[in-house]
Amino acid sequence: MTTVNHEHVPAAARRIAGHVLRTPVIEVSPGLWLKLELLQHTGSFKVRGAFNRMLSAGELPASGVIAASGGNHGLAVAFAARALGVRAEIFVPEVTSPVKVAGLRALGAHITQTGAFYSDAADAAAKRAVETGALAVHAYEQAEVVAGQGTTGLELVEQTGGVDTVLVAVGGGGFAAGITLGTESAGSGAGGPRIVCVEPERIPTLHAALRAGEPVQVEVGGVAADALGASKLGGLAFEVLSGPRVESVLVTDEAIVSARHTLWERHRVAAEHAGAAAYAALLSGVYRPAPGERVAVVVCGSNTDPATLTTA
Amino acid sequence: MTTVNHEHVPAAARRIAGHVLRTPVIEVSPGLWLKLELLQHTGSFKVRGAFNRMLSAGELPASGVIAASGGNHGLAVAFAARALGVRAEIFVPEVTSPVKVAGLRALGAHITQTGAFYSDAADAAAKRAVETGALAVHAYEQAEVVAGQGTTGLELVEQTGGVDTVLVAVGGGGFAAGITLGTESAGSGAGGPRIVCVEPERIPTLHAALRAGEPVQVEVGGVAADALGASKLGGLAFEVLSGPRVESVLVTDEAIVSARHTLWERHRVAAEHAGAAAYAALLSGVYRPAPGERVAVVVCGSNTDPATLTTA
Repeated sequence: MTTVNHEHVPAAARRIAGHVLRTPVIEVSPGLWLKLELLQHTGSFKVRGAFNRMLSAGELPASGVIAASGGNHGLAVAFAARALGVRAEIFVPEVTSPVKVAGLRALGAHITQTGAFYSDAADAAAKRAVETGALAVHAYEQAEVVAGQGTTGLELVEQTGGVDTVLVAVGGGGFAAGITLGTESAGSGAGGPRIVCVEPERIPTLHAALRAGEPVQVEVGGVAADALGASKLGGLAFEVLSGPRVESVLVTDEAIVSARHTLWERHRVAAEHAGAAAYAALLSGVYRPAPGERVAVVVCGSNTDPATLTTA
Repeated sequence: MTTVNHEHVPAAARRIAGHVLRTPVIEVSPGLWLKLELLQHTGSFKVRGAFNRMLSAGELPASGVIAASGGNHGLAVAFAARALGVRAEIFVPEVTSPVKVAGLRALGAHITQTGAFYSDAADAAAKRAVETGALAVHAYEQAEVVAGQGTTGLELVEQTGGVDTVLVAVGGGGFAAGITLGTESAGSGAGGPRIVCVEPERIPTLHAALRAGEPVQVEVGGVAADALGASKLGGLAFEVLSGPRVESVLVTDEAIVSARHTLWERHRVAAEHAGAAAYAALLSGVYRPAPGERVAVVVCGSNTDPATLTTA
């Protein structure tokens, strides 16, 4: 495990420029911004890390890249591989829905469905990478991936002119860690906005890690499990997210569902449940900004059935 | 009918600043921008004109404002009235769906359902405005409304650094006319980008007006009729849209449906049919940019049932 620091983020931004979208922010009320990262290619921030990992590797092996994920990370790796003209192998568990497999296939990825759980697919992918020499792209436990995700934070600071607080959802923690680094004030050590890390009560990977003093296994469940379903925080993420600027809060599934409806009804933003988790902390009052506090909420994913935006 | 010119647009922008969102653009491929006006308050550009009309009026009468529309214009007038603390009366035809009436009521508007057709509701609203002294806010046939809608064009130029071509949907023509004025180069007379006005084949108000030399009645039908359902181009709009920078093209309903799906699948933008019409001209090849041409597509409305984004 290589460590990662804030200097890696601007380097990542230069590397991936032109490959990813500079996603917009909207100031929905004075001092409250939504960072619409859900409009990113493939509908989530994951392409940032995928491109940075691949473009950091120099020449990519003929066997291409390999990843395990039936969700946003898999789509992102497949998309980046296609853009860079290399082969992508994606390992997914047998339970992965045909719709998701079709989505990956449409991006030209070679799919292997294996094992009952994500961890089985991940093990098979790791074994296969050793056999073929393909470059493994992890969803969060690689410095290049964390730095790539962090470019979202760098953009956010530029676009808003700086905020006091950023609310961001946590699964494996790579995105939140990247944003913590990406929003760090240049040259000021640990200075920068407060980072409020938001997790569903039913997947408290960061909350449990901070309590235990190290990443620990948690049970995974609830409405956001498809995208925030890591059962243990990443070690790289823990390094960053156990720092002084970071707070950890939990939200209920009901608050996530309600925030997702409100994002659609009020702002016409079509988020997946995980993408609405950060906003849920604000809307439910779990995080209450002070008067005049400048707050950015990162809405990070939109891979959802739009039919459920108003009903579920 | 007062005329309207490009100098009215920056004045409108100053007047409505803080009341409307500066909606984002995303550069989805090199030289191709989507202007996400569908993220505007109430889900369409209509609040720009509504606010500009009301804020241009000086002190508003105690009887408030009045408008006829069961759709985006009605929502916009109700929203602006609530924001400015004045009463809003909205006249809608009897066929208006309960969902739309509920939406208007949720914004605090007083609703009158009357007549079989939109024109009946409009006549009743005009009569009522004379009785009560309320300020009438027309959907497109008022200079302040056209200038307000034009602020979208002004923003678009600032955000993209200037484009060669803007694609925009036409109903009554107020939005396209406003954008034509709002994108006019300062001090250059009629200079500015090409404005490609896109209409459904089944509601060709501009196309028919240009052919006849004046606005004429057309039949109204097809998938976008709920938001582009004016049966005749506005006179103010005709003045502007019969100018030299403007082209008129038609798209099929099938192209609109396909463009709406693609906006969702590829860009996670949840547009209504009318909101996807401009993009349909590009996607279907009805408008083909030259190599290197810088193009902006205005995606102007999102008041849609999201369940139909993938299916209808």
